[in-house]
Amino acid sequence: MAVLGAPFDLAVTYRSGTRFGPRAVRLAEDIGRDGRPSIELGIDPYQELSVVDYGDADSPASDVLAAHASIQARVGEILAAGAIPAVIGGDHSITLPILRALAAHHGADGFSVIHFDTHADTGEIYENGPLPDHGQPFSRAVEEGVLLGGNIVQVGLRGCWPFPAEFDRMREQGFRWYTMAQIDERGLRTVLDETIAHARERAPRTYLTVDVDSMDPAYAPGTGTPEPGGLSSRELLAAVRRIACEVDLCGLDLVEVSPPYDVAGITALAGQRVIQEALGGIALRRSAKPARPARH
Amino acid sequence: MAVLGAPFDLAVTYRSGTRFGPRAVRLAEDIGRDGRPSIELGIDPYQELSVVDYGDADSPASDVLAAHASIQARVGEILAAGAIPAVIGGDHSITLPILRALAAHHGADGFSVIHFDTHADTGEIYENGPLPDHGQPFSRAVEEGVLLGGNIVQVGLRGCWPFPAEFDRMREQGFRWYTMAQIDERGLRTVLDETIAHARERAPRTYLTVDVDSMDPAYAPGTGTPEPGGLSSRELLAAVRRIACEVDLCGLDLVEVSPPYDVAGITALAGQRVIQEALGGIALRRSAKPARPARH
Amino acid sequence: MAVLGAPFDLAVTYRSGTRFGPRAVRLAEDIGRDGRPSIELGIDPYQELSVVDYGDADSPASDVLAAHASIQARVGEILAAGAIPAVIGGDHSITLPILRALAAHHGADGFSVIHFDTHADTGEIYENGPLPDHGQPFSRAVEEGVLLGGNIVQVGLRGCWPFPAEFDRMREQGFRWYTMAQIDERGLRTVLDETIAHARERAPRTYLTVDVDSMDPAYAPGTGTPEPGGLSSRELLAAVRRIACEVDLCGLDLVEVSPPYDVAGITALAGQRVIQEALGGIALRRSAKPARPARH
Amino acid sequence: MAVLGAPFDLAVTYRSGTRFGPRAVRLAEDIGRDGRPSIELGIDPYQELSVVDYGDADSPASDVLAAHASIQARVGEILAAGAIPAVIGGDHSITLPILRALAAHHGADGFSVIHFDTHADTGEIYENGPLPDHGQPFSRAVEEGVLLGGNIVQVGLRGCWPFPAEFDRMREQGFRWYTMAQIDERGLRTVLDETIAHARERAPRTYLTVDVDSMDPAYAPGTGTPEPGGLSSRELLAAVRRIACEVDLCGLDLVEVSPPYDVAGITALAGQRVIQEALGGIALRRSAKPARPARH
Amino acid sequence: MAVLGAPFDLAVTYRSGTRFGPRAVRLAEDIGRDGRPSIELGIDPYQELSVVDYGDADSPASDVLAAHASIQARVGEILAAGAIPAVIGGDHSITLPILRALAAHHGADGFSVIHFDTHADTGEIYENGPLPDHGQPFSRAVEEGVLLGGNIVQVGLRGCWPFPAEFDRMREQGFRWYTMAQIDERGLRTVLDETIAHARERAPRTYLTVDVDSMDPAYAPGTGTPEPGGLSSRELLAAVRRIACEVDLCGLDLVEVSPPYDVAGITALAGQRVIQEALGGIALRRSAKPARPARH
Amino acid sequence: MAVLGAPFDLAVTYRSGTRFGPRAVRLAEDIGRDGRPSIELGIDPYQELSVVDYGDADSPASDVLAAHASIQARVGEILAAGAIPAVIGGDHSITLPILRALAAHHGADGFSVIHFDTHADTGEIYENGPLPDHGQPFSRAVEEGVLLGGNIVQVGLRGCWPFPAEFDRMREQGFRWYTMAQIDERGLRTVLDETIAHARERAPRTYLTVDVDSMDPAYAPGTGTPEPGGLSSRELLAAVRRIACEVDLCGLDLVEVSPPYDVAGITALAGQRVIQEALGGIALRRSAKPARPARH
Repeated sequence: MAVLGAPFDLAVTYRSGTRFGPRAVRLAEDIGRDGRPSIELGIDPYQELSVVDYGDADSPASDVLAAHASIQARVGEILAAGAIPAVIGGDHSITLPILRALAAHHGADGFSVIHFDTHADTGEIYENGPLPDHGQPFSRAVEEGVLLGGNIVQVGLRGCWPFPAEFDRMREQGFRWYTMAQIDERGLRTVLDETIAHARERAPRTYLTVDVDSMDPAYAPGTGTPEPGGLSSRELLAAVRRIACEVDLCGLDLVEVSPPYDVAGITALAGQRVIQEALGGIALRRSAKPARPARH
Repeated sequence: MAVLGAPFDLAVTYRSGTRFGPRAVRLAEDIGRDGRPSIELGIDPYQELSVVDYGDADSPASDVLAAHASIQARVGEILAAGAIPAVIGGDHSITLPILRALAAHHGADGFSVIHFDTHADTGEIYENGPLPDHGQPFSRAVEEGVLLGGNIVQVGLRGCWPFPAEFDRMREQGFRWYTMAQIDERGLRTVLDETIAHARERAPRTYLTVDVDSMDPAYAPGTGTPEPGGLSSRELLAAVRRIACEVDLCGLDLVEVSPPYDVAGITALAGQRVIQEALGGIALRRSAKPARPARH
Repeated sequence: MAVLGAPFDLAVTYRSGTRFGPRAVRLAEDIGRDGRPSIELGIDPYQELSVVDYGDADSPASDVLAAHASIQARVGEILAAGAIPAVIGGDHSITLPILRALAAHHGADGFSVIHFDTHADTGEIYENGPLPDHGQPFSRAVEEGVLLGGNIVQVGLRGCWPFPAEFDRMREQGFRWYTMAQIDERGLRTVLDETIAHARERAPRTYLTVDVDSMDPAYAPGTGTPEPGGLSSRELLAAVRRIACEVDLCGLDLVEVSPPYDVAGITALAGQRVIQEALGGIALRRSAKPARPARH
Repeated sequence: MAVLGAPFDLAVTYRSGTRFGPRAVRLAEDIGRDGRPSIELGIDPYQELSVVDYGDADSPASDVLAAHASIQARVGEILAAGAIPAVIGGDHSITLPILRALAAHHGADGFSVIHFDTHADTGEIYENGPLPDHGQPFSRAVEEGVLLGGNIVQVGLRGCWPFPAEFDRMREQGFRWYTMAQIDERGLRTVLDETIAHARERAPRTYLTVDVDSMDPAYAPGTGTPEPGGLSSRELLAAVRRIACEVDLCGLDLVEVSPPYDVAGITALAGQRVIQEALGGIALRRSAKPARPARH
Repeated sequence: MAVLGAPFDLAVTYRSGTRFGPRAVRLAEDIGRDGRPSIELGIDPYQELSVVDYGDADSPASDVLAAHASIQARVGEILAAGAIPAVIGGDHSITLPILRALAAHHGADGFSVIHFDTHADTGEIYENGPLPDHGQPFSRAVEEGVLLGGNIVQVGLRGCWPFPAEFDRMREQGFRWYTMAQIDERGLRTVLDETIAHARERAPRTYLTVDVDSMDPAYAPGTGTPEPGGLSSRELLAAVRRIACEVDLCGLDLVEVSPPYDVAGITALAGQRVIQEALGGIALRRSAKPARPARH
Repeated sequence: MAVLGAPFDLAVTYRSGTRFGPRAVRLAEDIGRDGRPSIELGIDPYQELSVVDYGDADSPASDVLAAHASIQARVGEILAAGAIPAVIGGDHSITLPILRALAAHHGADGFSVIHFDTHADTGEIYENGPLPDHGQPFSRAVEEGVLLGGNIVQVGLRGCWPFPAEFDRMREQGFRWYTMAQIDERGLRTVLDETIAHARERAPRTYLTVDVDSMDPAYAPGTGTPEPGGLSSRELLAAVRRIACEVDLCGLDLVEVSPPYDVAGITALAGQRVIQEALGGIALRRSAKPARPARH
């Protein structure tokens, strides 16, 4: 595993500050040197896996395209080395260069995507239009051919965006998604059953992208476009743990932690734990051992 | 629809600051000019309804009675114009002049009330006693005859107040209410079934009053008398959406947002969404179209 | 009942600040002089019980052992007077001297313990090792013989600590515990059924120790070692109320409220309510009356 | 000396929250039981004087006139007992009832006033106009005859208010004042020389009223109407110390500390020290000993 | 006068958030509708001048060049209408398009610049280098020929940047500057004497650009690159007032207010007052009346 | 130079949190890799000196004596290597083990001490009394013989502590000090003249210890025992720069930065700059070149 920071927030449309996300998430740890075994999995990813900190991608001020190129290059290096990238954002636009690197390495049909978010991030793209922003990584990725629309499942959508026309285009492209109202009606367990089944069916491996604003602002106040009515940290962490145990993750990102708004640092903490749970699941699959949860 | 601010907090008994509630709730929006369709209803209230910002009612310093008179007058104007008032508080005492205006317009038996709150706000009133405070709007309204005790349902009560004598008087007057323990035991869905049925049965239209402290302090830290153990924003928003779709709302208020205590602005955000969900439901009923939730 | 403050945080391993916990929890009250009846129990503990504020135990700067001795002495005095101690921490190391005082008074087999926490606080103890810290009160208590390992049930464990070796030792000593994943799988109601049954079976009376970090950081940001994925305040308060009604509490503590991190004071508020719910249950059992919840 | 809290903010025109001022100022002390000698005066007021905490005046919600009456009554009691009142606000409107009590006890010509503030608080009063607010205590006091216009000196005025017409009326009534630009031009030492000389010349004793917003918002962010460009805490504290040593103080107040805006509590701290410095000076005059500053 | 917002922070190299500067500075006013006369000048700029709010320049996400073009166009419109632009940033890169508009209107030799800042903002520009950032507006402006190096005076420099090579280039280009140590040694009054004399000598009119970080972080915590050791708000406001009275201002900007870091809003408040003082001075010059400071 | 962190706050008597000081001060830098030349000295200490980060001293929970031993050992290693220690605290008790290491290396008469602080930190020590706290490092150091009382000068004392008896003992032991009132009366320049002269006269080299609470809480809110009326950051930084240029520093510490109270991080920033200024002066002396301040 290689942990990469992408301290970049030039593509943000509302509150900024996610450039300090990687720093905050890395610091959100209170144990450190003694390893960090998962109570629920009975495995310590830092012993089972080789985890290296690959530093931060360059993020030049003012230059979205240069920053994206740098992220793509660093992720490409990680993949070329046979490692699994775990990228800490930064705003959600960073997933676009990551998807480019994944498609270059595995082919666009070589991976599916599970995506936790409030927003579908499938904003319309205009010809000769403005530069990429954090509301468009997935529409751009499909347009560029580095993501197959039928390969992505989005969980946690709510509020007022995307607009109907964008949902129409998503339907045409084969996107799947679950809104919070659906989660409340059908239960998160069922939604995850379907999500995992679809991801596994569509490709041999899966990329996981988690926007912290999929959580309710109570759990993640430190983010750029908070939207009330979201998941609890308890739901999100258990979901990520389950996904990492049940699909083959080929990479992951955790985005949109914005420290200036992160009172008492609880968002960075939850973000760090998202990565932790994913590492635990990856380690368990690699170990080929069963989970051994701590039980009396 | 007419949105009215009531930036008033002279009647607060504990933490003040709700005078800045209207300003904060109006700013708690990240999209704005492009409309704001509801993902779950498939309708944009700003296209379906004519929504105007009617400014703020006058709130002279030190003078509770003058401020209440001003609120009553402005709401009266809105009702006279055939519009539905959506009032942003301010403390909960502002609901008293609103109820007066409603009773003047529709008759006291012309509307029922659904009320989300931690506190019943039915404090005892003493002859020659002090001026109205934010713990008394509903006892005063019943006493004044501008609210029928049998027409109100309160949801979310918890903690230690009202005291037993006040509950006794509420029972005599026909109030209905549900405490958080009841919600936990019987389920929020059932409680809402009964609430909506009662509101529809008692009158042809319903007023909705939402105190943000009905939510747990985790979701609404920015309020004057927070009480742990409350609703999540996810529960409250879904409940408001359902109510607005199933009863005829003749007005609503959202009160007790106190910005000085509102870390990262999440309470104002949740408050703004409460109004948003209500507008969506009202728009849907007016459109006479079915809901078209965004589904893949 | 005697309320004792233990403003002590020398034994904290990560974020400090709990020395101001007693002050903050005492101030987290908005009603005060008129009593504080429980809506769900229909009883006012301040009328039913004699509740005195016993002040704060001495907590000399730099000196863990002297502070622990002071806490033990004060709790011993309270027990000797036939009162029930309710101690406000302070870090969790303060439970060690409390358990010593309890064992001296009731015998180690005279009480069981129900323990809400993220962490088991059963850290390994080395011969000639460092002074006690807040990760060890229960391993030290068992080693000292002031707590029987088979008499304690821990609820809410999650994250990465204790490590497997510590869980092994806990199993040997007869500890019982429930992790958050177990709570999600089996339901909190069932977990509490078993917890209460075990506590009653093992001893005629029970000590309740509540670390506020058993709640999710959204509900309790003001604490030293927050861990995402925890209980809601609604779950914790209902659980404490139920326990206080169903077992004979011989004392309780509420620890790890850290005001410097407690945005808008919501953690102190939740902590104060934990004590409130416990007092209500104790009062109800003493009164030998049934609960009379406020219902319409 | 009697310390009285006036936890009242109904008369505030902008940011509220000063109702929690007395609580915060009382807590802003880190030494306490060992006395608090002044390094610069070489005297401990708590040993030299008999200082009692007279609690808080009643401040009923919503009712400005009742709260003012309560403050006036409590201050009257303190004066009748031969004690010197030190009142902690609360908003600045509380000085009006204090001046009434002083005039009743000493006669309006029996005291002068030194007043540190950004604002002159001499707002126009309209016949049949609204209730008193915190911008009017001194115009109302002069109109009521409880303060002689020629007996007050105001220090620290800046910004845009009072308006020219109000300054005209102040000139007619004999007010003296110094703006921040005057202080910068002539030096604070000279301004204080003149202030003290005038206060002593006009009456045998002097009342000191300190609005914390006389300090720059950097030193006093926790206040209702902060205005950049003010005094430093170092200037204000030295000025108060000097005044208390050079005139006979018959009372003082410290107003407009608003805890919700008081980051890290530094405004309450500065407010507490204002009282401290005044107590030191009073103690020194009473002791009839010379100052003995700590010097090597 | 036309007030223009430039809610732009894509060119920030460290802490972001100034995109919310215009909103915060506009809200930092507690009087509003009654005008805002200056106590020190005796004039109300809102009565003497016609002040209009020209809204915000478009600031598309991710696109520095498009945002700069929009700012330049809006300022050009204001100048073409014969009005004086007062621009609220946004980061300091916005001064570059403003200088372009000024040079197009007045000629590069038609105006001088007085510049308050911690940093000279004269970063080196590389051929084919990255897009403009907020450390380069003045080096870029000189290179583009829209600013004459000999026409600018910078006040308040401190810390470690620019580096020696950049100071060398500035010397070659004729820049003048004063560091904080110089201000301490020679006195701010003398430094302002020289600054004003130079600005008046070099051109018939002067542009004023104020970076709030020229103030010490105590006075302006809400900014992107705070540097201890700066001006007080009292010094800055008096300096701006004096400059606006003594030179012919043809425009001004106030930049780098970053609300996410602006505790209690004191930076926005100081920023609003900077504009206020400039308006006062401009109004006084236009009125051709002498200043009439409020004096007793 | 070797930078050492001492993340220790067990000896704090009031607000804790300085254990996170080293982390915060190290992060309080916005430039980093390009060096950090001083504008006022014209020298970059990172090029002139070899500066290494020596990590953090061990700070076991609960154990004051062990932590002090660890700090002493690490500082001893640095001195033995011929390097100059720059230690970031932690509470002020850490200066005690540093002085022990200095005395062991240079002899107690081999160094003098310049000490910026609100408090003299010369608390009385009782036989068989409690463990060292942060109010006693200098009385303990004199008693242990690792500091000569006649070799220390303290600058910035204010408030109410030390008490008269402690000042008496300090006088006997030869301490020199300057209170804030003395600084205001005689001027900081004169006070520094005398301070530097005394330090140079007493020993060939000088240790500099800076408590951030020597600054006013406006400049340093993030500290444990803030005291209004202190130095500005501008005064302190210029003083440290001057001292480092004029005496031979054999080490320095910067203590009492408490991040939980450090709003917007301005205290850590000021603390980092204190070290920066000291490094600059040391570099200048080592380079034997004159200062070359950036001047136009």
